[in-house]
Amino acid sequence: METDLTKIGMHKDQQYEVIITTMDKDGNSNAAPFGLRVLEKNEVFLRIFEGGNTIKNIKEKEEFIVNITNDPLMFTLSTTNTIPDEYLTRIPNKTNNDELAYLTDADAYFKCEVKSLKTTLREDDIKSSDVNYIKSEVVELNIKNKCVKPMNRAIHALIEALVNYSRINIVDEDTQKYFLERFLESERVIKRVGNEKEKESIQILKEDLINQGFEI
Amino acid sequence: METDLTKIGMHKDQQYEVIITTMDKDGNSNAAPFGLRVLEKNEVFLRIFEGGNTIKNIKEKEEFIVNITNDPLMFTLSTTNTIPDEYLTRIPNKTNNDELAYLTDADAYFKCEVKSLKTTLREDDIKSSDVNYIKSEVVELNIKNKCVKPMNRAIHALIEALVNYSRINIVDEDTQKYFLERFLESERVIKRVGNEKEKESIQILKEDLINQGFEI
Repeated sequence: METDLTKIGMHKDQQYEVIITTMDKDGNSNAAPFGLRVLEKNEVFLRIFEGGNTIKNIKEKEEFIVNITNDPLMFTLSTTNTIPDEYLTRIPNKTNNDELAYLTDADAYFKCEVKSLKTTLREDDIKSSDVNYIKSEVVELNIKNKCVKPMNRAIHALIEALVNYSRINIVDEDTQKYFLERFLESERVIKRVGNEKEKESIQILKEDLINQGFEI
Repeated sequence: METDLTKIGMHKDQQYEVIITTMDKDGNSNAAPFGLRVLEKNEVFLRIFEGGNTIKNIKEKEEFIVNITNDPLMFTLSTTNTIPDEYLTRIPNKTNNDELAYLTDADAYFKCEVKSLKTTLREDDIKSSDVNYIKSEVVELNIKNKCVKPMNRAIHALIEALVNYSRINIVDEDTQKYFLERFLESERVIKRVGNEKEKESIQILKEDLINQGFEI
């Protein structure tokens, strides 16, 4: 059985935007978007706050499906509510003698089994909440579109920084200040989820801005 | 000769982030990033401010090459300065009996010939400058990677809006205000460069925020 995530362009130490589908004990499906970090070519990491259906179902079943798609509507429906059953395909799950569901139009999907789950209290400015750290193993990878390309936020944080960079000398001071704040946000995103080329790129841009006399 | 941009996933009325390579009369290459709008399957539109090498070369030669890539370093180098010759491949240009250059690692590239060029004065807050509106015809499309996927800013404007949406009820008031401002920026980008699904998505999100009582 294929389990190597590099086959779908997912690489170690990078984070991708995915949609996770789970089932509860009664067979109700749930879909929600998450940032998924790749630890090894067949091992992934999730950080999920307590309270939603995804974490409830993962704790119950100790398994879930990761869907790779670029479909904006699927990300939107899964964020605001969930994805209706008509967009999902149910498959028998041999391990537990029940069912799992994947996103019918996903470019790829893979089944994960939880290897470890640790819960800690996170103190926030606004409220404190339990957060779960979950390591899982990829046990079955299905590639439906050979051109599958998982969504990664870094390249687009970079493009935004480049667009602002190219305009920074033709805008007023307030906008310059705003662009520099956004630049720091792009840098933060890229350092967290980007690859080496993206990190090198934002560094080149930063040095150029400093050379131009901007304080950043 | 192939000239149909839908073959590389570029569709009418959408805008893509591309790198344009041009040559001056003396054979010096230049590369710069632009937002390119598709007018018809073999017709594109560019808006370029006066002053750079790209517009100078386009005016001289009335032709240019559009490179489709997702390489962050190529976007960065072409934005901050230009792309060194070592990353470019020169090809003979039969029309003018000289040379053109494309980005060696581009997933696809196409040659364009200028059909019309109109220059108007644009009055800005900071300064006024001449801006050129250029319609061009695609005369030769080369696909080097079957999985070519041109960069479009809309899906990522949407992902940022979704990430902020999912956190808007756990952040303080100032951050909420910031998220709503960023939401309007995402909406602006999507309306300008996005497809129907992305426009539908940002509308769903907006209605949901309004239903939650946010003023947007």
